[in-house]
Amino acid sequence: MPSKAAPTKIHFLTIRQNQLAATKRPTRLKDRQRFPFESLHLDSAGPTPLYRQLEEQLRQAIWQGTLKTNAPLPASRQLASLLNIARNTVIRAYEQLAVEGFIQARPGAGHRVAEVLPARAPSKVRARPDAPAKLEPRLSRRSATLTRVNNFIGPQRHTSEPLPFRAHLPDYKAFPANIWRQLYSRRLKHSSHFWQLAVHPCGYWPLRQAVADYLVTARGMTVVPEQVIITAGVQQSFELLAKIFIDSGDRVIFEDPAYTPAATVFAMAGATNHYVDVDREGLVVDALPTSGAKLLYTTPASHFPLGINQSQARRKALLAWASKTSSIILEDDYNGEHRYRGRPLTTLHGMATAGQVIYLGSFSKLLFPALRLGYMVVPETLIEPIAGARWLLDRHSPPLEQAVLTDFINDGHFLRHLRRMRALYAQRQAQCIASLERHLGEWLSVEPLDSGLHLIAELRAELKSEDFVAAAKSANVELSAVAQFASEGYAKSQSQLIFGYAAYGEAEMEAAAQRLAKQFAELPKQ
Amino acid sequence: MPSKAAPTKIHFLTIRQNQLAATKRPTRLKDRQRFPFESLHLDSAGPTPLYRQLEEQLRQAIWQGTLKTNAPLPASRQLASLLNIARNTVIRAYEQLAVEGFIQARPGAGHRVAEVLPARAPSKVRARPDAPAKLEPRLSRRSATLTRVNNFIGPQRHTSEPLPFRAHLPDYKAFPANIWRQLYSRRLKHSSHFWQLAVHPCGYWPLRQAVADYLVTARGMTVVPEQVIITAGVQQSFELLAKIFIDSGDRVIFEDPAYTPAATVFAMAGATNHYVDVDREGLVVDALPTSGAKLLYTTPASHFPLGINQSQARRKALLAWASKTSSIILEDDYNGEHRYRGRPLTTLHGMATAGQVIYLGSFSKLLFPALRLGYMVVPETLIEPIAGARWLLDRHSPPLEQAVLTDFINDGHFLRHLRRMRALYAQRQAQCIASLERHLGEWLSVEPLDSGLHLIAELRAELKSEDFVAAAKSANVELSAVAQFASEGYAKSQSQLIFGYAAYGEAEMEAAAQRLAKQFAELPKQ
Repeated sequence: MPSKAAPTKIHFLTIRQNQLAATKRPTRLKDRQRFPFESLHLDSAGPTPLYRQLEEQLRQAIWQGTLKTNAPLPASRQLASLLNIARNTVIRAYEQLAVEGFIQARPGAGHRVAEVLPARAPSKVRARPDAPAKLEPRLSRRSATLTRVNNFIGPQRHTSEPLPFRAHLPDYKAFPANIWRQLYSRRLKHSSHFWQLAVHPCGYWPLRQAVADYLVTARGMTVVPEQVIITAGVQQSFELLAKIFIDSGDRVIFEDPAYTPAATVFAMAGATNHYVDVDREGLVVDALPTSGAKLLYTTPASHFPLGINQSQARRKALLAWASKTSSIILEDDYNGEHRYRGRPLTTLHGMATAGQVIYLGSFSKLLFPALRLGYMVVPETLIEPIAGARWLLDRHSPPLEQAVLTDFINDGHFLRHLRRMRALYAQRQAQCIASLERHLGEWLSVEPLDSGLHLIAELRAELKSEDFVAAAKSANVELSAVAQFASEGYAKSQSQLIFGYAAYGEAEMEAAAQRLAKQFAELPKQ
Repeated sequence: MPSKAAPTKIHFLTIRQNQLAATKRPTRLKDRQRFPFESLHLDSAGPTPLYRQLEEQLRQAIWQGTLKTNAPLPASRQLASLLNIARNTVIRAYEQLAVEGFIQARPGAGHRVAEVLPARAPSKVRARPDAPAKLEPRLSRRSATLTRVNNFIGPQRHTSEPLPFRAHLPDYKAFPANIWRQLYSRRLKHSSHFWQLAVHPCGYWPLRQAVADYLVTARGMTVVPEQVIITAGVQQSFELLAKIFIDSGDRVIFEDPAYTPAATVFAMAGATNHYVDVDREGLVVDALPTSGAKLLYTTPASHFPLGINQSQARRKALLAWASKTSSIILEDDYNGEHRYRGRPLTTLHGMATAGQVIYLGSFSKLLFPALRLGYMVVPETLIEPIAGARWLLDRHSPPLEQAVLTDFINDGHFLRHLRRMRALYAQRQAQCIASLERHLGEWLSVEPLDSGLHLIAELRAELKSEDFVAAAKSANVELSAVAQFASEGYAKSQSQLIFGYAAYGEAEMEAAAQRLAKQFAELPKQ
């Protein structure tokens, strides 16, 4: 369907051509007019680069037969003038189409549509499939659990920047991105082929060494590099442990409240989950079953999400319980590094006899959330089964990213960053408390915590925490509630909110608290 | 334990000091001699950088109390002279120790050991735990499957370069590493914070678009970006599918032989695996059970590992069977791009009605093995359950790596590389056949294959393939056998070897074939 549109542009093209003194072109141009190149519409304001738009429209025209096989294409200079775009844009689009086999460059004769098109033409380019799915897939019963998870999942089409007071995030903006870039560049330049080849499922050996070093020198643990297993983050650590430990019906114990995504992994693996209360000293060890538990998941340094430090007495009692019942303790030290007062706490792993405690750590809460690297410290007997499970799961974490993290640790950037962040987060916790007290004192009270990236606010009002979470949404504030992580039997189930502060500046938190106050004022009084 | 060792070095130090005209230093030097800095032993030939060695020895001396709290340290220039190393080495070690809190810089007074040491001193630095694991962990019954996997796992301490004829590897050395580095650098420089923040579990949206584009234009499929799920490779795709489809006892069908690591994932998820024969036309559809199968895993474009193309008649019959039995077909197109003769094959996905076929692709066999990125094309009803399963498994693949791959595709490098590799691999297949025929014709015969990265050799001898695999090891050659992927009932179980050729140069393959000939000649004749 050729058109006669855009005569001014054709005129323009003719002038340009004369300027270029392309003697033969006027006649050849005529041929080319068979396809209305001037009607191609490129949107320079859109998100898609111009060369991609051009490429796509030409490709589609070729598929659809509007641009016939063997038809000549305008020279890049001409088409650029015609469409009022840079010549490079056309060259790039032509190159891409040539690579794909849609067009061909012929010496001295410019480009032509290929005689034989690549592969089979799809009936519609990028169209939705005609019919809806005819076959309704029969999902597994256990997949029903997955629907609960969808609340945590962000938007499909873009990355969303977190708003105050989204919790469990470090300040990724304070991360030294320049250093990270230099380390990538160095590794890609100098590391021959190592980053292209598979590494051991338990991780890149120098990273395992660096993590062991760190745990020994900075956390006072007794660890050899073989015991350090690199994973794609603590969430994957749960999965690997579920695979090697859990058969259907095995019992796993959690604190109440606890980190729900851990409990869900074990439940999906067939475990029967059992919940035990937490008081001011942490997990109530006396309430533990006297037999039959295979694993116990705990967060002794800073209870998730309440921030309670488990007392020494309780720790000893917990280790004694584990020995007596032959249970294994999973110590999730997700906040071990973010400690603002007092000395770093000894880990349960450091207090235990060998083989009793598996220690879980993560880098995404220390460096930036998208860094999918974490680690476990395991007894040596577990190394082989875990290696097998990881190989089957996804082979290994990307060696390049592992190597960059290794350099980041070994060059001293890691400890330096932790130290800087510790000071920053301590300050932000104080700022967050000040903002909350200034604007939201009517509804809630907060106490400082010695560690972590969030605060727990106790609600004064009789309204439920879920009402506040919903109200916050209207104020463009991201709140969460302890109830999301607790059983229905949890006493304070509806009276606690979670305020993350680490990733937000003072002004941002102040403004968010003001917005919340305005919104909360509109909540019905009960 | 101060020592009087190394007088020449002390002398040297004194001279240097005078040269530096550091007026006060001679007296202060005396204090510092309390700790025998000159006895620090740095090994410049070892793998650990000097600054790390220095740092470690000082740290240990501080932990052990040999270097007392508050004790002054020599100036960097002095210590450098004393140990005959670069001053920067000392500065770097001091900086690191300062960051860790072991030493402190005091204005005008150089460095001193800190008054209060960080964290708790470990009883032994990097020592093995005293006792062996007291608690023998009780592993899950299903983890027994994992021991079989350990054959595939490489060494812990280094990355091993593959030897001919290790199969299923692309030529990673031919990969344009420079472009990859530029793309990383560009993304890290210009992409603000996006690479630090979580992306959707189904993948970075522009990558899903790029893959959909590719499948539409180059593979002739009908796909919208929402249907494309980015995974950490095809192995993880199996895991995600097992999670959403399989409850204990569900039946999954495989070809015999088939890709064992796929079958193992489903078995570990509780599936009952069922195997069906393959003949010259591919999977024998008539042998399929008439009901009760939930999933069927197949490699129609190039059977794994035999390289057979499934005939059109069989494909149609297979799709009809799936409709009748309400089974879902998993089409693993692991070799779709590596096709050397004829036109690219239509995919089963392209022939099927919506929802019947899930298509599995991978980038690690196209670009380099350590690239842990692959994808699935799924019916839209499965997007949400898979997103949930991935979020629980490990959240998402690294956004930075996804973005770099996106650029690699969108800038045209991907198709260009595939085209180059197609030509290279076709040539290498011919070279491999020539070498095998030249040197190993006595023991085996090979036929060209239209696709893939490996050849199947039929053994003439009566010896078992496992004997050849073992003999190859002694010749420093990596061979595998079809038997590793087949049931015991598979007819040709012990007469087929697998020769990977794509990653090796002509001379390398020729030499390997010669070594094999020598080694095979020593096998006992039966």
